[in-house]
Amino acid sequence: MSILVVGSVALDTVKTPAGERVDALGGSATYFSVAARNFTPVSLVAVVGNDFPKQHINMLKKHKVDLDGLEIADGKTFRWSGVYSGDLNDRTTLSTDLNVFAAFEPKLPDNYKKTPFLFLANIDPTLQLNVLKQVKKPKLTACDTMNLWIENKQEELRKLLKSIDIFFLNEPEAKMLTGRGNLFKAAQEIIKMGPKRVIIKKGEHGAILFSSNSVFCLPAYLLDDVVDPTGAGDTFAGGFMGYLAKAGKVTDAVLRNAIAYGTVMATFTVEGFSLDKLAKVTQSDINKRFNNFKKLVSF
Amino acid sequence: MSILVVGSVALDTVKTPAGERVDALGGSATYFSVAARNFTPVSLVAVVGNDFPKQHINMLKKHKVDLDGLEIADGKTFRWSGVYSGDLNDRTTLSTDLNVFAAFEPKLPDNYKKTPFLFLANIDPTLQLNVLKQVKKPKLTACDTMNLWIENKQEELRKLLKSIDIFFLNEPEAKMLTGRGNLFKAAQEIIKMGPKRVIIKKGEHGAILFSSNSVFCLPAYLLDDVVDPTGAGDTFAGGFMGYLAKAGKVTDAVLRNAIAYGTVMATFTVEGFSLDKLAKVTQSDINKRFNNFKKLVSF
Repeated sequence: MSILVVGSVALDTVKTPAGERVDALGGSATYFSVAARNFTPVSLVAVVGNDFPKQHINMLKKHKVDLDGLEIADGKTFRWSGVYSGDLNDRTTLSTDLNVFAAFEPKLPDNYKKTPFLFLANIDPTLQLNVLKQVKKPKLTACDTMNLWIENKQEELRKLLKSIDIFFLNEPEAKMLTGRGNLFKAAQEIIKMGPKRVIIKKGEHGAILFSSNSVFCLPAYLLDDVVDPTGAGDTFAGGFMGYLAKAGKVTDAVLRNAIAYGTVMATFTVEGFSLDKLAKVTQSDINKRFNNFKKLVSF
Repeated sequence: MSILVVGSVALDTVKTPAGERVDALGGSATYFSVAARNFTPVSLVAVVGNDFPKQHINMLKKHKVDLDGLEIADGKTFRWSGVYSGDLNDRTTLSTDLNVFAAFEPKLPDNYKKTPFLFLANIDPTLQLNVLKQVKKPKLTACDTMNLWIENKQEELRKLLKSIDIFFLNEPEAKMLTGRGNLFKAAQEIIKMGPKRVIIKKGEHGAILFSSNSVFCLPAYLLDDVVDPTGAGDTFAGGFMGYLAKAGKVTDAVLRNAIAYGTVMATFTVEGFSLDKLAKVTQSDINKRFNNFKKLVSF
């Protein structure tokens, strides 16, 4: 089954111990769609400015991401800039220039409205709600969020969560949203807010999938060389949702494999700047790393 | 096969969000031996003062820990006191009173010298080396350490590591010892210092076993109620070494199960203050949790 993703397409300026990139391709919807496209058809809704390099459009087209929903607006593309600490565990945002994204009002092409799988990447919950209103009862709706919306738009976020099947957020966000230090308790409280399942992302420590009556936990895939963690979470979500949509059903076994595929896809992203590595990944690369990962955690 | 453990037996005063305990039973060798005793015979070498409560001796005897090597010296027992943060991820040491431990010179009873498995719990590397000299070529030697020795006794620690088969340390310690932010690279450097295998403990994020040509990684077992993390690492080592000694051989499959059993044993420790829960665990509790853990991480 196919996925519709609504999120950001951006130009990122990033500095890590491995080097620096200026105005490199980034954005939650970008990482998500290229990752998911290895498993299933993907349509993308986002906005870029008329300064957005043609080569990035070509790359997305080469990956057969459906770009009918990519609006090209007058003005500059959304830009983000950040710097990572020496051990890559912390990052500082240096600047966020919304540019054309400031006036973004996602409008779905008619043929997008019957999407079976919907992923609302990390954007303002008001926009996420707006998209949700336009679609016709998807088989599965998932979303991501960030600390900014938990702080400033929690009412809208909570309204959104009532209609969400799978909610992605990271560990500090889960604690912030619930005021709970224990992840198990935090997840159970979030499930009471609406989502059937919660995926708590722990970065280099892996991810945990919670439902009301089960837990599944995986460590991250250990790499000897991490270049740039930007986009890892969005790639994880793309691999997860891509595998799920391809399977077309939500069983315990499918969900577990989806978490593993999400983890595997994220490793390619962090091994390079921007989508340098992710965009070049082959099915054989994915299968090989999936099998290695299975070996890494089996006992 | 049996294990000899050399380490501390202490009285701990601990404050966590769940409550407070004054002069409760603690110490690395205590947690280790009670955990390992579920798998294999254990002999303990340590020192306590003549104020050490008889009830603790009785508990250890009830668990059939061989106490021929437990010296009872004139003076007070080693005391440690600490307080945990609200989310239990940080702890502050309030006081460390070595007392009789200050003059501790481990002397092994003759029948201990041929131990097949030796665990040098976290004590001064000079003492660890001293014990190593007294034993006759054990089948397997493992040790733990802490930041204090990496800072102040690194030369002795490095000398010790040349004779170690399995080295336990936590994530910040591995980074401190090697100056490497990447755990994979840190572990490979440590292996060059001597140990055949390194186990990096990540607390609530699990543990990773490295050898020169393989990696095995497990998350921690998620608990909905953590009372007191004190002793978790020593219990982990006890479960790991206990399982290994019981198996009597060091294969990849045995090592993986040993990490899982170590993880499972540590959950009992953190569910109560001191050894309250750990000391009451049955074989059936262990098996049940081991099977649950397997389910938690399988895909």
